[in-house]
Parts: sequence; C-alpha cells; structure tokens
Amino acid sequence: MAEGATRSRENTRARLLDAAAEVFAEVGLGEASVERICERAGFTRGAFYSNFASKDEMFLELAKAVARDRVAAVRVRVAEIDVAEELGVEADDAASIIRVLDVIGDDRVSTLLMHEINIHAMRDAEFAAAYRAQDADMLDEVVQLIQEIVDDGGLVLRLPAHEAARIILAVWGDVSGRAAIAGLDAAATSELRSIEVGRVVHLIIEKC
Amino acid sequence: MAEGATRSRENTRARLLDAAAEVFAEVGLGEASVERICERAGFTRGAFYSNFASKDEMFLELAKAVARDRVAAVRVRVAEIDVAEELGVEADDAASIIRVLDVIGDDRVSTLLMHEINIHAMRDAEFAAAYRAQDADMLDEVVQLIQEIVDDGGLVLRLPAHEAARIILAVWGDVSGRAAIAGLDAAATSELRSIEVGRVVHLIIEKC
Repeated sequence: MAEGATRSRENTRARLLDAAAEVFAEVGLGEASVERICERAGFTRGAFYSNFASKDEMFLELAKAVARDRVAAVRVRVAEIDVAEELGVEADDAASIIRVLDVIGDDRVSTLLMHEINIHAMRDAEFAAAYRAQDADMLDEVVQLIQEIVDDGGLVLRLPAHEAARIILAVWGDVSGRAAIAGLDAAATSELRSIEVGRVVHLIIEKC
Repeated sequence: MAEGATRSRENTRARLLDAAAEVFAEVGLGEASVERICERAGFTRGAFYSNFASKDEMFLELAKAVARDRVAAVRVRVAEIDVAEELGVEADDAASIIRVLDVIGDDRVSTLLMHEINIHAMRDAEFAAAYRAQDADMLDEVVQLIQEIVDDGGLVLRLPAHEAARIILAVWGDVSGRAAIAGLDAAATSELRSIEVGRVVHLIIEKC
C-alpha cells in the first residue's frame, strides 16, 4: 500500500515533468504557468504543489534530467560498442568518438529546453548557482568518458580532456541550435551534428 | 523640415529599439509587451506602430542590429591594429586573432538577446527564414575577415575558413553564455573569452 502510493507519486511527478518539458519548450518559461502545465499533464494544482515547491524548483529538476539523460545516453552507447575495435588502428579515430557523442543528440524539445534553462540561469542568480553545479558535474562525466576512450584507443589529444570536452560541447550545442532553427528532422540533425562534431574531434586528436 | 522629420523618426526608431533590447533581455520576448517597450522608451503605442508593423518585425530588426554591430566591431578592431605587425613571425598567431574576435564581445544584454532570438527562430518558421539569411551574411563577413588575416599573416588553417569561423563562433557563443550565467563583469568575460577562443584558434592554426 505504502509502496503503491510511492509509485503513484513518482508517476505523477514524472508526468508533470514530461508535461512541463513540452510546455516550457513550446511557450517558454515566462508563459508556462503552473495551470498550463497541470492541464497538459491532466492534474490539479494541488498535485503540482504536493510535488514541487515552485515552478523554479521544477525547472531545476528538469535541467538535471536533461543533463542526466545526456550523460546516460553516452554511457549506454559506450557500453554497446566495442570501444577497442572501434578505436583500433584501422578505425577512423574521429568517427568513433562522433558515434559516441552523437547519441547525446538533443531533439528539438531538449534543445529548446536547454536554451530556456540558460536564459533563466542568466536572469536568476540562485537558479544559476544550482545550474552551474549541475553543469560542472555533467562536464566531469563527459571528460571522464573522453579520457576512457582516449586511453582505450591509445589516442593523443592536442589539449587536456576537459578543454576538449568544452569545445566539443560548444560545437554540439551550436549545431543543435542551428538544426532546430532550420527545422531539420532527427535524422538530418544527427547527420549534421556528426559532420560538425567530427570536424572538431579531428582537430582535437593529435595527428603530428 | 522634411529632413528634421526624418531625423526625428530615426531617433524614435532607435530609442524604441534600444528600449526593446533591454526589455527583451530582461523579461524575454513572451513577456515583453508593446506597452512595456513603449513605456521604457517614453513613447506611445502610436509611435511604435508608425515604426514597426509588429513586435516580430522589431525583433528581427534587433537581430540584424546585433549581427551588424558584431561585424562592425571586428572591422573597426582590424582597422585599428597593424595586422601585418600583429601577425608577423614574432607575433603569437593565436593572440592576434583573439584580439580581433574579442571585441565582437557580447555583453550580458546581447548574450541574452541572442538566446531570445535563437529560441524565437526555433518556434517561428517565418522568423527563422529571415534570421538564417542574416546569420549566413554574418558568417560570410567573419569568414572574409579570417581569410584576410590569414593571407596577411601568411598563416595556414587546418580547415577551410568557413568551418573555422563556425567553430570559433560556437565557442565564443558558449563562453559568452557561461560568463553571463556566472555573472562575470565585462572585463572578466572578455578575459575568459580570450582564453577559450584562443585555445580553439591555436587548434585551428596549422602547426605541423
């Protein structure tokens, strides 16, 4: 009974978060009222406030979820591929790392969400502090992944892994944004991202 | 008399655009009503609608102004420095190009504006088409500048100038966003941008 109640509560929370992600992406944080989110999720305001203290708390949880999903997607992809084979002497070094990063692949909703999250963090110092801590954690995880891939493949980077991670994430964010603006579908977005991220990975891997 | 009227009209238009830039950056496009913009500028709604057909038309003009200012700042900086001397054999190749790009330097308002502009372009196909044309023009101008600097300095890039321009602009946008989130002032933002843009310029310049 108690377990059922917990599961139901988690389900409510997850449905509210899903609805909020959609509404935030569609109309922005400013116009996404608690009422609108509840309506989309099919819940009352009471359900909302028994799960979240405020719209801001919910937004931060969503930011965490986006970052977590991103890193999780990379981890899953790394587990799936045979890194040693992919990164062997015969393999195209750049393509291997692209294939790993590609699945982080923002779709349009998460690209919009990331933009909304960044804007809110620029405007709200308290939210910014919490968001920066999350962002640092995500960067650390990506750095660790890059380091593992580099070590396994016997690759040499032209700059430290954390600097490489920042540049790769910057290009990845930029291309995702341009793809969303161009109205590209998931396949075309993924292809464009592979090309542009691949280009910067080529730059980062030592060739001399 | 007619000239005075034109000048007055241009002045009204410029004041409305300045006010709009502030209001859009502060509260976002969604919450920035025409009333709020007019109040900030000290004009009536009548003045607004005799200058702009809609908030959207104004926003696009603002996007154009941000891009134009950016390129103009780079051009001015290039004219000021002695490119040949800066890029001579004794000069630090990377630092020279950083100094040129640094002045594109978004402050917090233009960084917020660029985020608002991108989000709006993701949500509105018509705005997106106009914005993409502007973005392509800006990229072309930056490419041309890079090409001039490279030719003058006898430098060699590890990839085509337009690909280099995309990567540099991506890193520059990313660092500007993180600086705004961290609440850095203009000097600290400029310093951080020099370091991170410098890093990617080093990667892009052929060293082998």
